[in-house]
Amino acid sequence: MERVYRLTISCPDRVGIVAKVGQFLSGHGGWILEANHYSDLASGQFFMRHCIKADSMPLGLEEFKQEFAPIAAEFDMQWDVKDSGVAKKVILMASRESHCLADLLHRWHSKELDCDIPCVISNHDTLRSMVEWHGIPFFHVPVDKNNKEEHFRRVSAIVDEHNADTIVLARYMQILPADLCQRYVGQVINIHHSFLPSFVGAKPYHQAAERGVKLIGATCHYVTEELDAGPIIDQDVIRVSHKDTVEDMVRLGKDVEKMVLARGVRSHLEDRVLRHGNKTIVF
Amino acid sequence: MERVYRLTISCPDRVGIVAKVGQFLSGHGGWILEANHYSDLASGQFFMRHCIKADSMPLGLEEFKQEFAPIAAEFDMQWDVKDSGVAKKVILMASRESHCLADLLHRWHSKELDCDIPCVISNHDTLRSMVEWHGIPFFHVPVDKNNKEEHFRRVSAIVDEHNADTIVLARYMQILPADLCQRYVGQVINIHHSFLPSFVGAKPYHQAAERGVKLIGATCHYVTEELDAGPIIDQDVIRVSHKDTVEDMVRLGKDVEKMVLARGVRSHLEDRVLRHGNKTIVF
Amino acid sequence: MERVYRLTISCPDRVGIVAKVGQFLSGHGGWILEANHYSDLASGQFFMRHCIKADSMPLGLEEFKQEFAPIAAEFDMQWDVKDSGVAKKVILMASRESHCLADLLHRWHSKELDCDIPCVISNHDTLRSMVEWHGIPFFHVPVDKNNKEEHFRRVSAIVDEHNADTIVLARYMQILPADLCQRYVGQVINIHHSFLPSFVGAKPYHQAAERGVKLIGATCHYVTEELDAGPIIDQDVIRVSHKDTVEDMVRLGKDVEKMVLARGVRSHLEDRVLRHGNKTIVF
Amino acid sequence: MERVYRLTISCPDRVGIVAKVGQFLSGHGGWILEANHYSDLASGQFFMRHCIKADSMPLGLEEFKQEFAPIAAEFDMQWDVKDSGVAKKVILMASRESHCLADLLHRWHSKELDCDIPCVISNHDTLRSMVEWHGIPFFHVPVDKNNKEEHFRRVSAIVDEHNADTIVLARYMQILPADLCQRYVGQVINIHHSFLPSFVGAKPYHQAAERGVKLIGATCHYVTEELDAGPIIDQDVIRVSHKDTVEDMVRLGKDVEKMVLARGVRSHLEDRVLRHGNKTIVF
Repeated sequence: MERVYRLTISCPDRVGIVAKVGQFLSGHGGWILEANHYSDLASGQFFMRHCIKADSMPLGLEEFKQEFAPIAAEFDMQWDVKDSGVAKKVILMASRESHCLADLLHRWHSKELDCDIPCVISNHDTLRSMVEWHGIPFFHVPVDKNNKEEHFRRVSAIVDEHNADTIVLARYMQILPADLCQRYVGQVINIHHSFLPSFVGAKPYHQAAERGVKLIGATCHYVTEELDAGPIIDQDVIRVSHKDTVEDMVRLGKDVEKMVLARGVRSHLEDRVLRHGNKTIVF
Repeated sequence: MERVYRLTISCPDRVGIVAKVGQFLSGHGGWILEANHYSDLASGQFFMRHCIKADSMPLGLEEFKQEFAPIAAEFDMQWDVKDSGVAKKVILMASRESHCLADLLHRWHSKELDCDIPCVISNHDTLRSMVEWHGIPFFHVPVDKNNKEEHFRRVSAIVDEHNADTIVLARYMQILPADLCQRYVGQVINIHHSFLPSFVGAKPYHQAAERGVKLIGATCHYVTEELDAGPIIDQDVIRVSHKDTVEDMVRLGKDVEKMVLARGVRSHLEDRVLRHGNKTIVF
Repeated sequence: MERVYRLTISCPDRVGIVAKVGQFLSGHGGWILEANHYSDLASGQFFMRHCIKADSMPLGLEEFKQEFAPIAAEFDMQWDVKDSGVAKKVILMASRESHCLADLLHRWHSKELDCDIPCVISNHDTLRSMVEWHGIPFFHVPVDKNNKEEHFRRVSAIVDEHNADTIVLARYMQILPADLCQRYVGQVINIHHSFLPSFVGAKPYHQAAERGVKLIGATCHYVTEELDAGPIIDQDVIRVSHKDTVEDMVRLGKDVEKMVLARGVRSHLEDRVLRHGNKTIVF
Repeated sequence: MERVYRLTISCPDRVGIVAKVGQFLSGHGGWILEANHYSDLASGQFFMRHCIKADSMPLGLEEFKQEFAPIAAEFDMQWDVKDSGVAKKVILMASRESHCLADLLHRWHSKELDCDIPCVISNHDTLRSMVEWHGIPFFHVPVDKNNKEEHFRRVSAIVDEHNADTIVLARYMQILPADLCQRYVGQVINIHHSFLPSFVGAKPYHQAAERGVKLIGATCHYVTEELDAGPIIDQDVIRVSHKDTVEDMVRLGKDVEKMVLARGVRSHLEDRVLRHGNKTIVF
């Protein structure tokens, strides 16, 4: 995979943004491999993502940032530029269910997911051997009703220690405290095992079976303080029928969960997801 | 299409039901074309549907009922048997939106839907010409805030007059009064333009856009007194993205609505839908 | 819907295209509502589509073309610019099957498809009344084994007389002669009732049933001289099972056919489809 | 999971089969948990599958067979009855690609797939460590152009030695010799990385990219002597666009391959797949 700079921009829409950014890039010899634009007419906000061959520009990442800063200021941009050659550090958190964790680990192991995984954190010791087979450190941080604060203090310490860019809750099943949500805005990805906003909270497959729905789903979203209400990155569904018990739904749902989570994580790692209020633009 | 008897049964599960029904049918020479069984382990209820070649049995529909009644009594069955040669009478109700109505009318016109449509009722006159082109009477029964009772009295009268078996709300957009719901339990089919239970009530596409979901859907269900909460017959979804405005969702959703409604109506017309509490078995 | 200019470009990829086009547009005050880019790395070809608010530029369509021509020449572009306010003239051709024609006519009638339909041509008289109800002239041009040449001469004459931009074969079931294919390259859209390249030619549902596939599909493509081998615009599938007879597949397939055809036609009408050899870029 | 007898039957259709089987089962106290029927009208063949609570019948598997044999003879049945408590022995074969193998192993490890896996055979040593972590013996049996016969002699010997009921080719990438196909009719399951019958043979994703299809797929089928032409058990597709390179298709296709293979294997293990000529009935 060619090394690219990924430039992402969000700013008030007006005439001339595309021209200005285009001139900047071509002025430095930048070869654009991929470009996405979106104008949100309702809010008047403009969003943009470019992938530029890193080798086509004589600028390092810091120089790029310096050179681009005046344009960003002129157009009042929220923006960022990433080097695809610098892998994100992603900490995975899981509980006892292995399907999402195993799937992410396999994708990482077979080089489908381009990131570093400095460690896995779990409130159970169940999945240690699977994680360690991949050569990844495993931290067992138990939690119960009485030690939640202590649990999350230790989790925070591990996250900090490993300089994580992203935390993926791969069926972690614990509700993150508000202060963690606030410290890692747009950096914590969760998979919820329902087609949100249906069946928020606990036991969504039981809720789905109770209501008699004909499709069940999963939702990958950024974690915010409000439970299961953060910006949605991806969703998908699978057909069920009267024949499917709650246990069948749990089994069938696993495949949707792991696929949707993997797609969401991949989009995030490639800097394809821009947040806009409580929604996402996924380029 | 071969004329068949459609025998549907729901009863407490126990050993011997299948054998007894099988013996009854074969004892009268009944050639089974299709058979479906479902045991609901949670409730202990058993469900069954058979299609039998009508010509293979020397029994008319009434004789069939008389002969089968003792077995039904023995096993405490809720049951029914229909002759596929007797078309159901289906009244369609619509408002101003044409997509569901046009779709159902076309399927009926091209003989894909096997039913009679004695008339269409609408609270607007907009779709009169389309309906009348099909040779179907059109009743315009206006409604406003002050004449709802009068409106539904007239609607009821038309339904009664035409001996309707089934009422299909093809985006009718008015909430049926409780007494109508109670009189036509399991006979009124609605299409709701969301993936229920998400986005109950008015303007579901606006709600979906607001929440930033990545799939929108439609739900075909039997109407009960509680709004958008009746037994679900079928559902489906379509992918949307940040690029889709509410108007795009309305347009994209139309295709899902009309497909899901047509599938649900077809299942109902073929006596494939058995109700079980607030859920459905769709054979 | 806001009136827009749709600028589509295909040219050899190199640094500076985006900047140059961006400058041209912003230099004339052009407000970009939508922009799509695609670099085909294998062939080194670059593709681009912009929608610009027509009112934001002081240029009429002809002036736009004149002003842009030097840039196009510099970058060796194949290009076009269309005014969304000028509806395309689309002639529909059908045979006896009504589902695709009825669907397109309804979408046109309800203003979902933005085009003019100067007439419908059919080799049977079956669908005349349906077409004429929409206020559209219907030409019955019979065809049999012995008058194919004469048939297509008359068809060509009607197409010419109405200055058609696009011909849609809505299950027309006749193979277009080579000279017609050559005269209307990229302007004739067909729907084939299989998931191409499976089941080319006649009776694809019979072929599908014979092979025992578990999904059937439909393919919307531009017509070329080679049967069912032109550039694919869109495809979709629907699940079938052992229970589905050929007749069931025909019925189920109709829904896929009409949806895929409508999506393909819509993309074509909005100038979203760029051809690249025997493939398409669909923005 | 309750232990069940799975009775599968295929015989010429006539009146009385259902009654006779039903009587047999209820006569021995058999509690039917699941029942499926299918009449193939074209061929006049009838198919049936029952799951009966093993504990509800006073018959062991051999007694069941003895008691049922006269009925089977009377109706000219091809039939079998399996005890769900006896796990099938399934040998997995793979090459260098890990996604299908890892997926099946994880489903087995997490008890989603109910079978024994006596060993994995591969023509490369690449996946040894992954297999052995699961506690499963791994046989590396190299193959090249000159030792194919020797390779398959060793493979056959391993299969025989482990008394395998089923062989799953989890992207094994070698064509099985005719004699192996004949010895294991209906017991060898393959995953082909295209939506068959499109793109038979080598490099189907390259073929798909070349043709410009808008959906790619995978097909799980029983292996027969004719390459990629055996009875299809399951298929699925995923949407692609002009943006997807062959490499993207390979990556996206992996998810379809592993899902379709897992579903097909599961159906086979639960005795849900009945063959009918070159097609399958999947109950």
